[in-house]
Amino acid sequence: MCGIFGIDLHEEASAMTYLGLYALQHRGQESAGLATWDGRQMKVERGMGEVSEIFRPSVLRRLAGFRAIGHTRYSTAGSSIVANAQPVVVMTGMGPLALVHNGNLVNAAQLREELEAQGSIFQTTSDTEVILHLMAKNQRDSVVESLMLALEKVSGAYSVLLLTESSLIAARDPFGFRPLWLGSLRGAPCFASETCALDILEAECIGELEPGEVVATSRDGQVERFMLPGRAAARSSRCAFEHVYFARPDSRLFGDAVSQVRTKMGEVLAREQPATADLVVPVPDSGLFAALGFSRASGIPFEFGLIRNHYVGRTFIQPQQEIRDFSVRVKLNPVRELIEGKRVVLVDDSIVRGTTSRKIVRMVREAGAAEVHLRISSPPTRWPCHYGIDTPNREDLIAANQSIEEIGRFVEADSLGYLSVEGLLSCLSGPADTYCTACWMGDYRVPIGQHHPRQRSLFPIETESYA
Amino acid sequence: MCGIFGIDLHEEASAMTYLGLYALQHRGQESAGLATWDGRQMKVERGMGEVSEIFRPSVLRRLAGFRAIGHTRYSTAGSSIVANAQPVVVMTGMGPLALVHNGNLVNAAQLREELEAQGSIFQTTSDTEVILHLMAKNQRDSVVESLMLALEKVSGAYSVLLLTESSLIAARDPFGFRPLWLGSLRGAPCFASETCALDILEAECIGELEPGEVVATSRDGQVERFMLPGRAAARSSRCAFEHVYFARPDSRLFGDAVSQVRTKMGEVLAREQPATADLVVPVPDSGLFAALGFSRASGIPFEFGLIRNHYVGRTFIQPQQEIRDFSVRVKLNPVRELIEGKRVVLVDDSIVRGTTSRKIVRMVREAGAAEVHLRISSPPTRWPCHYGIDTPNREDLIAANQSIEEIGRFVEADSLGYLSVEGLLSCLSGPADTYCTACWMGDYRVPIGQHHPRQRSLFPIETESYA
Amino acid sequence: MCGIFGIDLHEEASAMTYLGLYALQHRGQESAGLATWDGRQMKVERGMGEVSEIFRPSVLRRLAGFRAIGHTRYSTAGSSIVANAQPVVVMTGMGPLALVHNGNLVNAAQLREELEAQGSIFQTTSDTEVILHLMAKNQRDSVVESLMLALEKVSGAYSVLLLTESSLIAARDPFGFRPLWLGSLRGAPCFASETCALDILEAECIGELEPGEVVATSRDGQVERFMLPGRAAARSSRCAFEHVYFARPDSRLFGDAVSQVRTKMGEVLAREQPATADLVVPVPDSGLFAALGFSRASGIPFEFGLIRNHYVGRTFIQPQQEIRDFSVRVKLNPVRELIEGKRVVLVDDSIVRGTTSRKIVRMVREAGAAEVHLRISSPPTRWPCHYGIDTPNREDLIAANQSIEEIGRFVEADSLGYLSVEGLLSCLSGPADTYCTACWMGDYRVPIGQHHPRQRSLFPIETESYA
Amino acid sequence: MCGIFGIDLHEEASAMTYLGLYALQHRGQESAGLATWDGRQMKVERGMGEVSEIFRPSVLRRLAGFRAIGHTRYSTAGSSIVANAQPVVVMTGMGPLALVHNGNLVNAAQLREELEAQGSIFQTTSDTEVILHLMAKNQRDSVVESLMLALEKVSGAYSVLLLTESSLIAARDPFGFRPLWLGSLRGAPCFASETCALDILEAECIGELEPGEVVATSRDGQVERFMLPGRAAARSSRCAFEHVYFARPDSRLFGDAVSQVRTKMGEVLAREQPATADLVVPVPDSGLFAALGFSRASGIPFEFGLIRNHYVGRTFIQPQQEIRDFSVRVKLNPVRELIEGKRVVLVDDSIVRGTTSRKIVRMVREAGAAEVHLRISSPPTRWPCHYGIDTPNREDLIAANQSIEEIGRFVEADSLGYLSVEGLLSCLSGPADTYCTACWMGDYRVPIGQHHPRQRSLFPIETESYA
Repeated sequence: MCGIFGIDLHEEASAMTYLGLYALQHRGQESAGLATWDGRQMKVERGMGEVSEIFRPSVLRRLAGFRAIGHTRYSTAGSSIVANAQPVVVMTGMGPLALVHNGNLVNAAQLREELEAQGSIFQTTSDTEVILHLMAKNQRDSVVESLMLALEKVSGAYSVLLLTESSLIAARDPFGFRPLWLGSLRGAPCFASETCALDILEAECIGELEPGEVVATSRDGQVERFMLPGRAAARSSRCAFEHVYFARPDSRLFGDAVSQVRTKMGEVLAREQPATADLVVPVPDSGLFAALGFSRASGIPFEFGLIRNHYVGRTFIQPQQEIRDFSVRVKLNPVRELIEGKRVVLVDDSIVRGTTSRKIVRMVREAGAAEVHLRISSPPTRWPCHYGIDTPNREDLIAANQSIEEIGRFVEADSLGYLSVEGLLSCLSGPADTYCTACWMGDYRVPIGQHHPRQRSLFPIETESYA
Repeated sequence: MCGIFGIDLHEEASAMTYLGLYALQHRGQESAGLATWDGRQMKVERGMGEVSEIFRPSVLRRLAGFRAIGHTRYSTAGSSIVANAQPVVVMTGMGPLALVHNGNLVNAAQLREELEAQGSIFQTTSDTEVILHLMAKNQRDSVVESLMLALEKVSGAYSVLLLTESSLIAARDPFGFRPLWLGSLRGAPCFASETCALDILEAECIGELEPGEVVATSRDGQVERFMLPGRAAARSSRCAFEHVYFARPDSRLFGDAVSQVRTKMGEVLAREQPATADLVVPVPDSGLFAALGFSRASGIPFEFGLIRNHYVGRTFIQPQQEIRDFSVRVKLNPVRELIEGKRVVLVDDSIVRGTTSRKIVRMVREAGAAEVHLRISSPPTRWPCHYGIDTPNREDLIAANQSIEEIGRFVEADSLGYLSVEGLLSCLSGPADTYCTACWMGDYRVPIGQHHPRQRSLFPIETESYA
Repeated sequence: MCGIFGIDLHEEASAMTYLGLYALQHRGQESAGLATWDGRQMKVERGMGEVSEIFRPSVLRRLAGFRAIGHTRYSTAGSSIVANAQPVVVMTGMGPLALVHNGNLVNAAQLREELEAQGSIFQTTSDTEVILHLMAKNQRDSVVESLMLALEKVSGAYSVLLLTESSLIAARDPFGFRPLWLGSLRGAPCFASETCALDILEAECIGELEPGEVVATSRDGQVERFMLPGRAAARSSRCAFEHVYFARPDSRLFGDAVSQVRTKMGEVLAREQPATADLVVPVPDSGLFAALGFSRASGIPFEFGLIRNHYVGRTFIQPQQEIRDFSVRVKLNPVRELIEGKRVVLVDDSIVRGTTSRKIVRMVREAGAAEVHLRISSPPTRWPCHYGIDTPNREDLIAANQSIEEIGRFVEADSLGYLSVEGLLSCLSGPADTYCTACWMGDYRVPIGQHHPRQRSLFPIETESYA
Repeated sequence: MCGIFGIDLHEEASAMTYLGLYALQHRGQESAGLATWDGRQMKVERGMGEVSEIFRPSVLRRLAGFRAIGHTRYSTAGSSIVANAQPVVVMTGMGPLALVHNGNLVNAAQLREELEAQGSIFQTTSDTEVILHLMAKNQRDSVVESLMLALEKVSGAYSVLLLTESSLIAARDPFGFRPLWLGSLRGAPCFASETCALDILEAECIGELEPGEVVATSRDGQVERFMLPGRAAARSSRCAFEHVYFARPDSRLFGDAVSQVRTKMGEVLAREQPATADLVVPVPDSGLFAALGFSRASGIPFEFGLIRNHYVGRTFIQPQQEIRDFSVRVKLNPVRELIEGKRVVLVDDSIVRGTTSRKIVRMVREAGAAEVHLRISSPPTRWPCHYGIDTPNREDLIAANQSIEEIGRFVEADSLGYLSVEGLLSCLSGPADTYCTACWMGDYRVPIGQHHPRQRSLFPIETESYA
């Protein structure tokens, strides 16, 4: 649940990286960081909050340099601390290195134990630091070579950007779980999690890195390309959930436009799980495109029957003495005049615990809907993701524990329908087996080790530093 | 350009007011304030920024009390200072008074001069302070009476809430320019600029105050109703632009649901200004409903062809050395895959200076649109508003100075069409002459005095106070 | 308990005022403010905290102008809010006015009631605002004349500085309670509460304003001098407690050097209240000079036996579960090696409640002192000050309720001796009856009205504004 | 230039550590940090600024735990960043470790290079991190053993406190450069750089750690004592400059009371470097005791002729357009009435560059002194300290480059006299060769390596993290 961006050979590398992170803000709003190299010194800034709160003009001015990387991050409550914010920046025998990382390593805890036994010391709980330790243990004249040696040892999902004294290096794991794009801003090579970050700069979109590919910039603005040896044995496992929910709808991903995929999902959903109704209403913003597709395929009129409050701050205070739960009401408000007396098809992208869906269904019914038919533009989420999406444990995933019929009753819908896995894959242009479907099918392609990454919440250090 | 909320006889008056302001955040994001009465003391908090930034838990805890009013405000650059944030709170011979105000007085500058000549001293540039001075000069045993005497002397647009030691009083000007609703939160009387602020609390919506009506709460939870004497001579002049742009789409206003009015505007616009095209694309978020209506009436498919970045912070930094202007790109991104090769009808709510519209038209064309037909769901904005909407001077209003054909060329659209005034009024359920149309027709119903309110930017005091 | 500073005709008026306030910081550390006039606009900044915290470089840069006034303030807990910070700045029929005030008006509450009855509205609880209202009610072409008319109506202690569009005006009350100096910074006229604020700028010290004198700057760098009509009837009543405690020892005051007066007080005290002892130890920093004088006159060696912690912050946290009270220990530490086994004369400037003195006596005894003889370089404080020093009510003044012998037992000293009023006055060069001795004798020269100023803590408004 | 404090087995360990740091604030005001162990997790807080600014109540509340260490630090401009603030906290194979360090390692740069070559990565520029890396490379079941193995490899000056899951461990280098005390707070063992930190808690002072001693707490409140093997070969080298300037006068140090040592220095100085004068005036606060001693031995009266401004903030702004330098005037003000026409002996503790001394001499002369005789209560500072005191390079030390006569002319004194090394040592109770006198004699007892520590200002990473 992170967004990363990097650029080389640009006079205003930090401003460009700031803009790139800005466009990737939907991939994480809890912390952000940015590191630059100015030919002499590596400068770093990390903070809690949104990109525009952290990188005020005075901060960006400090972050001079022609090469930069940045990171924006969603973090679970326990570890929501500045010390874990990226980039991680360290001094090594190969000089200073800064690393940002989108993904999740499944053998990080085991590697950490091995490294600690050898005398390495850790300052964060992040997988990112593991990669840097592995590099330091495998120093080479070529930093690319050192990075590749380190990445050979890690398993799991990662797209990383490494800032060094001499280059900007990007790498994507051999399975290709997380996206990573190469672009060019009038000659300056840049990398981004999604194309929307290239669009905001009006940068040219050159292409996605291949799974297992490593790309390093050189002084002349060219890039060198390498392939991780693990690529041969790996099956392409692109995260289909990025298309369902995570990516911005104006991005392209794994060869498809997210907007078109989502609209198609709605169309297929309408055919697989039809409903007799008067209106199709999206749960904003995630259900917008699928609802439009559902409306088109079904012929049922589309209406903006739920309005989202765009000023939802991070510090909403639940009144103390009130019995009611304001959390959903604060985000969404139904439009009674549109809904009243109507049979409504409500389209959302997924159901996790079911509690939010139930609140929305109730809210729509209280606004006068005659019937509420819930349609979900993805299959039931039955397994946690170990490759970088922050899903809860199985016990908390309603679809891991209840039948679709039971879920329908739980959320109090008149009917409930999910998109099938086949239906979902039919909306994507690549071969079906090139996508990871582990959260729906449980078919984890990279084995999950004994050291489950969630054990790291036991990391016994909690740090905060104020400037 | 403000939102106001108030509540009486509620244990958590400040939390409820906070939630109400939260729902009214779209009416102003630059400053906010909240005053409470706890039976002994009036407590006030004002600050720059969004509601959720200012009213952190520790602040709300300080603001104990069972009666509260709040304000959220958009302010023009020059006067964007804490000293001007509302509520204005003062000590008078009738006890402490706190006032919030949505609207604009046309004779404020003249009244201020008269008051200063009589020995009144001013600490803000706001109209609100003028009303309090007039009350202090017209002290009565009944604060309602004092307020009504003061309001008799002011001309222009106002919806106000007054917090006193003994009551919460609401008043709407005799012309009824700005909205104001009365609601009931399980017996606790409350007032709000829009119904969405009542909805967030699940409060019952009792009705709009009549133009010229004054409503005061009493100890038993009942309200007393009065009528300003000026009502008789005034023509109802409800701001139609609230329906076009300003109000939230899930609110009701002047007897109509905003969402339905906006959809109808799109339908009428499609009939008045048809276009031959492949797609209807809204400029988000203001053009959403009108675009849907246009699509329905024309049969041209609707697409989300422009994506809005919802994380637009207040402190975006324009890179220094870049020639390009990022300001629109940071907010909107076109979806090339949807637009490419298509003839696009772009639907927006209004054109002010034309420069933003031109950037959007260009952006859509650069994303591959074959043709761009711009359709505006309101008439050309030719006159500045003196009744509370912050429009620029005539010289900056493109429609005040250029023909529609010229505007079309300026914004570089293949065609441009506006909704007619008649078409717009046909979407509203009230009699046509009960709406103010001054920004389109120049028919100002309350005469603008010699002391133009903009002169107040000459107010020679600039204050900032830090805690 | 305030310090004031002003300067005219200086390019860096705000920086000079900042430095002046800096030197006056001992007169109040809880809030500070600064107003400037740049020929076009009045700019104001106020905040809670110390001068160097509030006036950061970016703030001083905003405060351009060639004429400025500033204020630093100690405030009692209840009213320690930004809204009460000075300068008070208002817009009047005579243009913008900014006022700072050191002192206390005894008829402020009564004047406030009268003004409120006439329709004036108040935004602060400060006496300062009363003066501005009186000016607004007595507008004249000459602002000096208006100020003098206003000052005729107020009773009590005040030294004020008024910043206007055309002049900087200083006034001292007819009794001359509080000090006020005129200086010249290479031609730029400046005013300050104490000479140390002129010294920091290396400004020339021209002289103290006479009681009742009003001095106004003019464009050519000259000053005009006026006399308040009340002067004739008033007896000079210079605050002797300024010499005892309040003023900085490097200042001159009412014709004497504070350092010399304090040393003499110690000498007279040694003669009036001798002790048989081995050491004289000052309670730092207020007792330093008197202890030196005591040592000289008695021949008993002087030792720094108590060390003051100079890093006492404003937010010291008393540990929760500890029984002991750290408050004095945090400020002072005895030097056991110097004290152990010795008979100690402890010299302090005054005793208010007695609790702090008792803690210090105990601390010295626990550090091994054989005997502790407490000597106070002023008479017993028996009456509250109504002229600007923040003393507690009579019930809390130990000397108002107990005999000296009882006090000695309460503070657990082996002996206790106070300086006599006559002794104290003998250390000052002016005639005895030109000093106010009300806090020792109760001989209030300006009658205290029925509206006791402390009633104003009932002011029912509590405001905070954040930028 | 640091202060350290630690405590074990106390319910309010963080509050006690906060108070201890508070008393040690004079040893460093630029950053501070505190780490606690609560039996389950290590919590850390670090920040820039003074102790009372960083450890606000909410922060202390977060830092629960029964075992804690803290650090307060003066840092040179270049490295004044949060990332370098202590404690350094890391995760190792032996569990979490937190370390604070007062002193300077002379072989840190070399060790760092070796460690980096072996694959260690660094996040700070501090010596402290080197010690932790060495521990991680020498893991043992006993953390004390691991610490002792690490300390065997480092050379230089250090007093350290190590917080682990099971113990609090203190160590002092075999030469004993920096002080370190063991105390007991009603049974809870505690450690502090100076006794004033024990005094503030009213803790019992058990004794100084021996040079080379390691003390570890155990669960029952007892301590175990060890000796570093390097002790045998090392000469005791206690920093005499701590007595001259650095320590607080109410502390005891190396067997002597600082206050008494300083007074004696003044007495010996008066005999070695007599002056014919009317007054002895201390440069506050460092010269207070020596001036008192000089006055006693010479019979020349003591006067507080220079007043120090106690509100010197960290962000004083030098006015832009002024030619004069306010930096000294802002801190000190002469009392003209005491000085005028007098022959003054000015007593200070040391001269570094000479520029400040010159400003003070000039200031005293401008205040009317007939003659100014400067007396320094320590020998000429001719060599930089490599053991933890932040002195400038030789080229900037005036006494390294000029004769005493030349210095006297440079500072514009009528005469200049320094205390001799022998004279200084005669004021200390220990054998002369147990003190380090390298800054006066150049006799460095621990050889300075080729990797001069100042090279580390080349560390190429600059980090800031905001919460």
